[in-house]
Amino acid sequence: MTTIREATSADVGAMLSLMRELAEFESLTHLFVATEDGLRDALFGARPAAEALVAEKAGKLVGYALFFHNYSTFVGRRGLYLEDLYVQPDQRGTGLGTALLRRVAALAVERQCGRFEWTVLDWNQRAIDFYEKMGASIMPDWRVVRVADDALEQLATGAKASNG
Amino acid sequence: MTTIREATSADVGAMLSLMRELAEFESLTHLFVATEDGLRDALFGARPAAEALVAEKAGKLVGYALFFHNYSTFVGRRGLYLEDLYVQPDQRGTGLGTALLRRVAALAVERQCGRFEWTVLDWNQRAIDFYEKMGASIMPDWRVVRVADDALEQLATGAKASNG
Repeated sequence: MTTIREATSADVGAMLSLMRELAEFESLTHLFVATEDGLRDALFGARPAAEALVAEKAGKLVGYALFFHNYSTFVGRRGLYLEDLYVQPDQRGTGLGTALLRRVAALAVERQCGRFEWTVLDWNQRAIDFYEKMGASIMPDWRVVRVADDALEQLATGAKASNG
Repeated sequence: MTTIREATSADVGAMLSLMRELAEFESLTHLFVATEDGLRDALFGARPAAEALVAEKAGKLVGYALFFHNYSTFVGRRGLYLEDLYVQPDQRGTGLGTALLRRVAALAVERQCGRFEWTVLDWNQRAIDFYEKMGASIMPDWRVVRVADDALEQLATGAKASNG
């Protein structure tokens, strides 16, 4: 039997392992530099940056959802943004992803959020099919823009961007 | 002369007008239901959901940037997410957009954020060119997924989605 519950500080090590698995699945391990202390602080520190639910089976974490609030000026209300939804490969197809997604959606409704949003990689057709089946819309025309590392420093200071 | 400064409660009415202009520019007025009270509460209420900078010229607001913190599990740190960046059409090309973007980037650096991110409509080539010139990367493979209104209620309650 699988339980979905709020994450606690004792889950942080196992959650970080699952996050690394997700980065591997998304071929993004080069971006993975998170630490246990950082995650603990983000979820359970004095000024939490995110919240998480975990899926536990036979005393072992097999999935998680991590989310935080965003805000839409057009809707004029907070929303919920799902940063990660992960279920271990051998647990897929058992309804765990659905259950996690529903639980976060229920929080969004309970907190009167205008929207529940996340992003998906365009090659992850299995995920796209799953989200559409759950009633979500894949927005065709928005692109994510990112500035990080040296480019962020340069943008902040007004130094010439390396590709500018 | 134009001043960029933190928004105050007295700016809320003028900011809402600018937000409506942005919705018109993006052909998204059908999504615009924000109110002055809602915006005031989001920026200056007991539990702020966002922060804003405004650009003021001759006592009149001509642009704004609205942003909040997000969180990356892979980076293991908070980031800054820019929800809106708007400069009135007759003020474009004067460096105001650049100045607003730099000021938010400087806050991101000051707060040790791992990333500074936002989204752009794929048909807004002028904005895309501007962001790339500033050193930002347009991520080609991420798509925004959204659940709102009835679909959100249905997802939360487990009722069959209308397209399911």
